[in-house]
Amino acid sequence: MPYFDAASAAPLHPVARQALLASLDEGWADPARLYREGRRARMLLDAAREAAAEAVGCRADELVFTPSGTRAVHTGVSGALAGRRRVGNRLVVSAVEHSSVLHAAEAHAAAGGSVTEVPVDRSGAVEAGAFAAALDGNTALACLQSANHEVGTEQPVARAAAACREAGVPLLVDAAQSLAWGPVAEGWSLLTASAHKWGGPAGVGLLAVRKGVRFAPQGPADERESGRAPGFENLPAIVAAAASLRAVRAEAEAEGARLRALVDRIRTRVPELVPDVEVVGDPVRRLPHLVTFSCLYVDGETLLHELDREGFSVSSGSSCTSSTLTPSHVLRAMGVLSEGNVRVSLPAGTAEEDVDRFLAVLPGVVARVRERLGAPVAAPAPAAGSGPLVVDSLGKRCPIPVIELAKVIGDVPVGGTVTVLADDEAARLDIPAWCEMRGQEYVGEEPSPRGGTAYVVRRLG
Amino acid sequence: MPYFDAASAAPLHPVARQALLASLDEGWADPARLYREGRRARMLLDAAREAAAEAVGCRADELVFTPSGTRAVHTGVSGALAGRRRVGNRLVVSAVEHSSVLHAAEAHAAAGGSVTEVPVDRSGAVEAGAFAAALDGNTALACLQSANHEVGTEQPVARAAAACREAGVPLLVDAAQSLAWGPVAEGWSLLTASAHKWGGPAGVGLLAVRKGVRFAPQGPADERESGRAPGFENLPAIVAAAASLRAVRAEAEAEGARLRALVDRIRTRVPELVPDVEVVGDPVRRLPHLVTFSCLYVDGETLLHELDREGFSVSSGSSCTSSTLTPSHVLRAMGVLSEGNVRVSLPAGTAEEDVDRFLAVLPGVVARVRERLGAPVAAPAPAAGSGPLVVDSLGKRCPIPVIELAKVIGDVPVGGTVTVLADDEAARLDIPAWCEMRGQEYVGEEPSPRGGTAYVVRRLG
Repeated sequence: MPYFDAASAAPLHPVARQALLASLDEGWADPARLYREGRRARMLLDAAREAAAEAVGCRADELVFTPSGTRAVHTGVSGALAGRRRVGNRLVVSAVEHSSVLHAAEAHAAAGGSVTEVPVDRSGAVEAGAFAAALDGNTALACLQSANHEVGTEQPVARAAAACREAGVPLLVDAAQSLAWGPVAEGWSLLTASAHKWGGPAGVGLLAVRKGVRFAPQGPADERESGRAPGFENLPAIVAAAASLRAVRAEAEAEGARLRALVDRIRTRVPELVPDVEVVGDPVRRLPHLVTFSCLYVDGETLLHELDREGFSVSSGSSCTSSTLTPSHVLRAMGVLSEGNVRVSLPAGTAEEDVDRFLAVLPGVVARVRERLGAPVAAPAPAAGSGPLVVDSLGKRCPIPVIELAKVIGDVPVGGTVTVLADDEAARLDIPAWCEMRGQEYVGEEPSPRGGTAYVVRRLG
Repeated sequence: MPYFDAASAAPLHPVARQALLASLDEGWADPARLYREGRRARMLLDAAREAAAEAVGCRADELVFTPSGTRAVHTGVSGALAGRRRVGNRLVVSAVEHSSVLHAAEAHAAAGGSVTEVPVDRSGAVEAGAFAAALDGNTALACLQSANHEVGTEQPVARAAAACREAGVPLLVDAAQSLAWGPVAEGWSLLTASAHKWGGPAGVGLLAVRKGVRFAPQGPADERESGRAPGFENLPAIVAAAASLRAVRAEAEAEGARLRALVDRIRTRVPELVPDVEVVGDPVRRLPHLVTFSCLYVDGETLLHELDREGFSVSSGSSCTSSTLTPSHVLRAMGVLSEGNVRVSLPAGTAEEDVDRFLAVLPGVVARVRERLGAPVAAPAPAAGSGPLVVDSLGKRCPIPVIELAKVIGDVPVGGTVTVLADDEAARLDIPAWCEMRGQEYVGEEPSPRGGTAYVVRRLG
């Protein structure tokens, strides 16, 4: 049963499993104690820290283990902001950071701080110049992920780091998605990651803070992990995390090249096999194992269920699969289609056959979902109608507003407009994206007198 | 090799190990995902929550899993204080709470809040009336442990809870040391605990918040664990924690009775076998598996090393074994001897023979340490001297000041005084404790003109 959601959580690496089992016996005691079980635990902890620091590219005394990548980000952001409180209170983040960074930014804003979000282009990449321009004399910290977790696009970390150095601003790099594949480019001040993304166990994140970076941990502390991560160390899991990081790094070059080719196959074949698909994210500057595409006229949740029934586990940034009723903030920031969104992230060791079977199954699955939703199957016939058309999709969830738009576009004379009334947040993203894919003109939106929003589209051909 | 430090961390229970192994295979995926691996993880998480809630005595939706007992306490205290910010800003705690509670209290005070510490008696117990008296109209939260982690004394939780209900103040009970043995008395509002204390793995704590208790989680949050514990769930460890809690509870009555008898044996035999020992903590209202005693004229760190060489792992609240240079805050609050302090906490399954061997080995170990330190071996001879005596122990670490006091007391005429100059913090606790054990009068302390403190002792006999 192919599991294609490594970006959420990777299955436990065999090396991690082995290390975990060994350290359940050897590393359960308190490493702060003086007796032999404690000394043994301390040795395991020290060795794990050395190994993780080597993989990160920092000194062991710059790195602490946290209970998760999310906690590493929260601690890193709040500690760095507090450490530079006298300099300023601005936090600069890219618009496509992981939610843990954005939640930390929200908490900062709620406490009276200021937050600047740097936009991304349609590939999901920050423009380094724009990032540099956002740094001002009031900026306490900047955050930029090494690569995006939803679309795989790599960020210009080296150039952002140079700009930060120039501006005297520390840079926190969330390396959760890329650390398995290699170290982050030089120049970061703080770095965070999460073990279960690289085949380590849950319950372990890491936070590295370069010597010389002002850092003031917030909240109650204790003497563990240099006062940066209170609470009894999750030692067997830490040992397993460090061991598996070393193991995946040893395999990274070969496995990365193999998965990169499989992802290229998906990127090429999906638009050939499935009509009306947008493959998103940078095709070249990207993570080796991750690809995201969106299918017009498809409900993301149904698509996931159908793929699950066929044996494939993938995730989606469509609003229809989340409890928030809004599409993924990453897709929104990129301005790409969000309906029928599928993220495929291949775990190490993924079989080529499984990818091929996915490609074989996908077209039929998408077609079935579209058929059930009554999606248009052919390009619109030339119109004979007249006058401005209005489609009322109020109260209807994605992808229905786009489906209804597609159904009437044939009735619109070339040069004429159609207005779609919708109150589903996804329409704001998906109607312009549909226009771009279909070569129609997206005119704009205005409040609808009947509630929701009126989206205006001009037929060009 | 007998490990007698279960109160720090218990070795992994066989049931925990088994559950952990099984859920490494079944529970590594993200429980928030819709595909089968995610649904399976969600089922495991739900079942673990049900099991833990049953053991705690609350509803499943009142309980969240945290990365450690410490994090549960920090989250519980800050969330409850924030939830009642409009009522007041006072936090009431006992003086012998776990450091995680006291660290949370320090953070509260640093943020401008007010903290009241309720003292304990010489057994380590809070007096329920004094606890009730500390609750005022400005009190947002009160904290009382179920039983003390250093001396085993049970706290009057039921009476404290009644007083809190009366005053309309929520009560947080840190049940870390007692939850393995049974549920906490009714009446608590928030409850915290830590899995590695009951033979579960590291990396799991729990926080229960009763419905109706005002609670506002602080810091960045996400959608996991009801917004109270951000970050990817440490699922295999959570499953193991819940399974082992159920297992230790099934064994609690029989094993508790067996360990209680072993601890009684230690409590009775140690003062018979070793001269000049104070066994501390309540002899009856106590945890079944834990006993603490202090040995006059002994350096705690050396004692621990000697016991370790004999194969016994125990901990100590002596200042000489910690990096803080002050004795344990618990021993200080109780006003008992801190030098040569030993905490024995028996893990489930401790063999009777190991306890007997400990009792056989201890007298020789203590005698050797005393001999090396030049401690007095006999009661003082009647004095013939005259005039006030001064002992200069400035710059000397515990237990030297007390040893030097004991050596000269024989030179002091009955009714006369001796003054000990000392700058080791432990002397403040250990000189009065020595007086009580020796039937001499502790007159008091004053600043010493030569630095440090002058402790005055009157010879009574």
